[in-house]
Amino acid sequence: MIKAGIIGSTGYVGQSLVWFLRQHKDVEINFLCSHNNTNIAFSQVYPNYAEYIHIDCIDIQSAIDRFSKIDVLFIALPHGKAFDLATKALESGIKVVDLGADFRLKSDSSYKLWYGLEHQSPNLLSRVAYGLPETNKKAIIEADLVANPGCYPTASILALAPLLSHSLIQKSSIIIDAKSGVSGAGRTADVSTLFCECNESIKAYGIASHRHTPEIEQELSRVADEELIVSFTPHLIPMNRGILATCYATLTKAVDQDELNKIYKEFYIECPFIRIISTPPETRWVKGTNLCDIAVRIDKRTNRIIVVSAIDNLVKGAAGQAVQNMNIMFGFKETEALDLLAMFP
Amino acid sequence: MIKAGIIGSTGYVGQSLVWFLRQHKDVEINFLCSHNNTNIAFSQVYPNYAEYIHIDCIDIQSAIDRFSKIDVLFIALPHGKAFDLATKALESGIKVVDLGADFRLKSDSSYKLWYGLEHQSPNLLSRVAYGLPETNKKAIIEADLVANPGCYPTASILALAPLLSHSLIQKSSIIIDAKSGVSGAGRTADVSTLFCECNESIKAYGIASHRHTPEIEQELSRVADEELIVSFTPHLIPMNRGILATCYATLTKAVDQDELNKIYKEFYIECPFIRIISTPPETRWVKGTNLCDIAVRIDKRTNRIIVVSAIDNLVKGAAGQAVQNMNIMFGFKETEALDLLAMFP
Amino acid sequence: MIKAGIIGSTGYVGQSLVWFLRQHKDVEINFLCSHNNTNIAFSQVYPNYAEYIHIDCIDIQSAIDRFSKIDVLFIALPHGKAFDLATKALESGIKVVDLGADFRLKSDSSYKLWYGLEHQSPNLLSRVAYGLPETNKKAIIEADLVANPGCYPTASILALAPLLSHSLIQKSSIIIDAKSGVSGAGRTADVSTLFCECNESIKAYGIASHRHTPEIEQELSRVADEELIVSFTPHLIPMNRGILATCYATLTKAVDQDELNKIYKEFYIECPFIRIISTPPETRWVKGTNLCDIAVRIDKRTNRIIVVSAIDNLVKGAAGQAVQNMNIMFGFKETEALDLLAMFP
Amino acid sequence: MIKAGIIGSTGYVGQSLVWFLRQHKDVEINFLCSHNNTNIAFSQVYPNYAEYIHIDCIDIQSAIDRFSKIDVLFIALPHGKAFDLATKALESGIKVVDLGADFRLKSDSSYKLWYGLEHQSPNLLSRVAYGLPETNKKAIIEADLVANPGCYPTASILALAPLLSHSLIQKSSIIIDAKSGVSGAGRTADVSTLFCECNESIKAYGIASHRHTPEIEQELSRVADEELIVSFTPHLIPMNRGILATCYATLTKAVDQDELNKIYKEFYIECPFIRIISTPPETRWVKGTNLCDIAVRIDKRTNRIIVVSAIDNLVKGAAGQAVQNMNIMFGFKETEALDLLAMFP
Repeated sequence: MIKAGIIGSTGYVGQSLVWFLRQHKDVEINFLCSHNNTNIAFSQVYPNYAEYIHIDCIDIQSAIDRFSKIDVLFIALPHGKAFDLATKALESGIKVVDLGADFRLKSDSSYKLWYGLEHQSPNLLSRVAYGLPETNKKAIIEADLVANPGCYPTASILALAPLLSHSLIQKSSIIIDAKSGVSGAGRTADVSTLFCECNESIKAYGIASHRHTPEIEQELSRVADEELIVSFTPHLIPMNRGILATCYATLTKAVDQDELNKIYKEFYIECPFIRIISTPPETRWVKGTNLCDIAVRIDKRTNRIIVVSAIDNLVKGAAGQAVQNMNIMFGFKETEALDLLAMFP
Repeated sequence: MIKAGIIGSTGYVGQSLVWFLRQHKDVEINFLCSHNNTNIAFSQVYPNYAEYIHIDCIDIQSAIDRFSKIDVLFIALPHGKAFDLATKALESGIKVVDLGADFRLKSDSSYKLWYGLEHQSPNLLSRVAYGLPETNKKAIIEADLVANPGCYPTASILALAPLLSHSLIQKSSIIIDAKSGVSGAGRTADVSTLFCECNESIKAYGIASHRHTPEIEQELSRVADEELIVSFTPHLIPMNRGILATCYATLTKAVDQDELNKIYKEFYIECPFIRIISTPPETRWVKGTNLCDIAVRIDKRTNRIIVVSAIDNLVKGAAGQAVQNMNIMFGFKETEALDLLAMFP
Repeated sequence: MIKAGIIGSTGYVGQSLVWFLRQHKDVEINFLCSHNNTNIAFSQVYPNYAEYIHIDCIDIQSAIDRFSKIDVLFIALPHGKAFDLATKALESGIKVVDLGADFRLKSDSSYKLWYGLEHQSPNLLSRVAYGLPETNKKAIIEADLVANPGCYPTASILALAPLLSHSLIQKSSIIIDAKSGVSGAGRTADVSTLFCECNESIKAYGIASHRHTPEIEQELSRVADEELIVSFTPHLIPMNRGILATCYATLTKAVDQDELNKIYKEFYIECPFIRIISTPPETRWVKGTNLCDIAVRIDKRTNRIIVVSAIDNLVKGAAGQAVQNMNIMFGFKETEALDLLAMFP
Repeated sequence: MIKAGIIGSTGYVGQSLVWFLRQHKDVEINFLCSHNNTNIAFSQVYPNYAEYIHIDCIDIQSAIDRFSKIDVLFIALPHGKAFDLATKALESGIKVVDLGADFRLKSDSSYKLWYGLEHQSPNLLSRVAYGLPETNKKAIIEADLVANPGCYPTASILALAPLLSHSLIQKSSIIIDAKSGVSGAGRTADVSTLFCECNESIKAYGIASHRHTPEIEQELSRVADEELIVSFTPHLIPMNRGILATCYATLTKAVDQDELNKIYKEFYIECPFIRIISTPPETRWVKGTNLCDIAVRIDKRTNRIIVVSAIDNLVKGAAGQAVQNMNIMFGFKETEALDLLAMFP
């Protein structure tokens, strides 16, 4: 039984972590840290836990003071806030899963370019494992600092990696059109995510400028073993959870549907959370789960391939994947605490 | 390990039963029966189960033929369809949980009055236990035929039983104004439950005539030990799941808020799924769970009491309660397979 | 052609006023005032008006400076903010429609009790007309200061007035269970009205304490010609617009359905926005309109009457009714600019 | 004052036509035809019209019998149903706007290929005007048979036409990723469009095979003056109304943002319903209107252009555009009955 601490526990992602860790048989939650809710009962912030979780949120300094008592630290904070915490945690000899963006990009100059902020721990970058187990498991096993992927990159990379690995698509032809539920915007009071502003509408945002773009490019380039850039457009959808990524690319050679399905299935053969399916994925079938459903279609008329992937942005796109990474880092069963299927409707 | 069969497995309620039974450590699903989807893979009807459940739906005769191989039968069919199946199952010596309406009313004449149908198994009525464990556990323990309560009655009875048990309210003063998500209407192709017909609207329906009224009255009368009638109005709300029941009654004596809370907590002291809370319940905090959250308020100006209860109509209001009943009937832990909290948002 | 100014123009209610006034043939908008958006183009705050409204928002002092140039002032501010503005406007000889709560209650002590604030213009109270044309048209015709009713009171009073006018119900028996869309909470950044907090959930709030209670009681007492108090419970529903009020009361005498419908139709015979219908109202059929749909049902078993009314909270419950009041005050056609039907779906 | 008949008046599109025609000052509705609701009051099918429209639906033969009494016929039926009606109407000397798919494709063999049906009126194809006024107004003025465009083609063609007209993009590089509200699926009882099946989910459908593809290609080819093919993927979004089309293409030459905006504004300079805006369009700002909002972005990193367009699928994508076409055909003001802005929220 290991002990875990969560910093940023009252955001949507942090709270989702609590949800999964509560039912993990090898993990005990040691503390919940929340800057905004210090000294308030966690179950008062989230009444779904009433009578089940009896923990008051602590402040960041108190959290740091407890590093010696935990085995793993989860950081679920906005970008720019994890540098110091990760450094201190590693110095205390505990493993870290950072769910923010601070350690996802291998290049500090790229970080500065896209996040507008000087990277404050460039020395740590070489020991970070990018936490997408389906493409990077070996590194995660050995890492003590894992950068949990962004939600859009998770869906996008899982959709495209097999094609790049087999050099089936033109590297300059990739377009990713992604759609996300509103929980991706976090639990911050903001007019733009009020119910009446999101309900009954859809929009694109961050066109040609979203910060998940370099992360997608970094990891797809690694798989392709060659630098590539992509067009990536996120959209906001009136639903709580879920990401659907519709990916387009031009084929480099003739391939038929059966071959494609086989390539995908083989690529993910040891990956318990990937389902290669024949009908187009729908986010409802993976809601609340750590699964990623993927379907591939050839458009013979245009010589393009269309890959659609669906995940739950708060689970496979955040908290669930963090638990999966922890499971791998500590040698637990990879699916421990993550074996639920979507509760429908 | 017992074996279970489900008839009506591809409705929303039947499918929810599958969801919970899949993770029940003492139960194995033996067959899934679906009139409309005979010979079709269950996971094709509900792709959330893809790669996890490999069972083809069977027809009703095939289900009956398998009665000898199961220990418990769940029937999730529209009213009027359970008479014959329950009779045959009991003759086969297996226990039955009927999630429909056929065995909920103790009086066959009341059944005929409200359902417009002759009761076909009046002889079974005396051995039926009404399956609301919080008010009727002893009978459920001994029963081989349990009538799983309706969703509205579950929320309504749980809200009002403590008051009636303590004679705190005037019996003629009870008004129940209930609100339900759309899944309560089932998975039937019907214009009135199309997305565009329900979204962005609310309506009352079945005013002064809904079939759950006599069921509420029967059980509240039993608790009150006196015949009573109620006004009950259901409403349709644009959300998938959840029931909120707002209940009004006139006080018979002075009582303060602390006393009331104490009365409720004591009444439900041995009930693992009831939470007496101080803030008004919201369905999101019980979504996907077998919990019922209840809050009580005194309105001194009008000498009324207002009780609000929240459940998930498909869980505590249907499939979860059925599993709870099965747990009690077979001596399993009452919360087995039902210990999840609401996944938010 | 008269000239109008709107203070509080960038809230949901203020913006709705702009929408209706834009297509009013007898009105020209002179200024739009917004504390939070001073010097910003109105169409930047609300892009639905892009290329159609070319007005920059002004601050409050600039608005006051323009009082001499307008004929009517609409104030759409939170309570406590209208006292001074109304006083100055009346001194400038212009008519005022206040869409806030400051002039709705006839008694300044009641205002203090429910709003926790000293009334600052008690001298004006005697010249205020409560702006519900269906019950108070004569006063509105002659008034220069109209207090536009709250959204819940509009739905509630319209549902119950005919019964009280005919002494058909026991005055102590009235219960109003009301449900509102989220736009009623306004356009303020607040966690509790974020999309993910409201979507897929329902709750009661302000139980036995909501500020619309004394307003409902005041106006129903006036119709009944006798003091009465009511139980009123509002609920929050996951939809943008609409209020449904389900009202319960005990009958004082036998009456049949036809008589009741006749009583309602006669009571509202000169009211162009009231529809007495035979099926239960749904908010979708009045969405975007100034209509109020009402249906009445007798519950013979309990000797109660159930009245359900549906309005659009931002139209008949706010901006539309304000325009209706202005039409009456200025002698325009009562339905001018308000003759649209619900756009469905 | 002309007289209009509507066949298929009780679908979502037909009903929307009624909504707009009711407030058209030059048009009187002569009959409403509905196969499924013959002899039923239109306002019973759609209670938003209660007390405002007093017309009973008639059957198709009765509609045909009235052709001599009308000036314009709107046909809003599924594909394959308009051939005979259009023929008879034209023979009766009345003008026809067909809102279905039967006359959109110029080639009967293409029709057969995509719709799986022999075209039954190939002789009429040469006299059809494709009813997108922004690219084809001259033909519409002279036509007596107008094929109202599909909803996706309207959004897609309007987004891309200026680029093709100026040869700014590679013709083989076009990808259209479109998202639609559920009303696009019509008012047919079907499990797949039930509230609980669509709410809280998103999916792609008709990948590489949707019937709107050849229509988009036909019209874009005409503008480009060269045959081209596109990749088109529609998605279903949990909202009632609205289409957002996100379009990608590779630039053929360097162009800056200002030039692009100027090109778009000039292309649509005489088009009252097109707004070229600088922020990404959102469907809420055009909901209920005949407007199309368009924004263009250059992605310098990938040398691509991204164009996003937003329409209301039932208005500019169907009924509103049909009225616009009628206005043009009869010499009315193009914006007559279509001058409303989005009612928000």
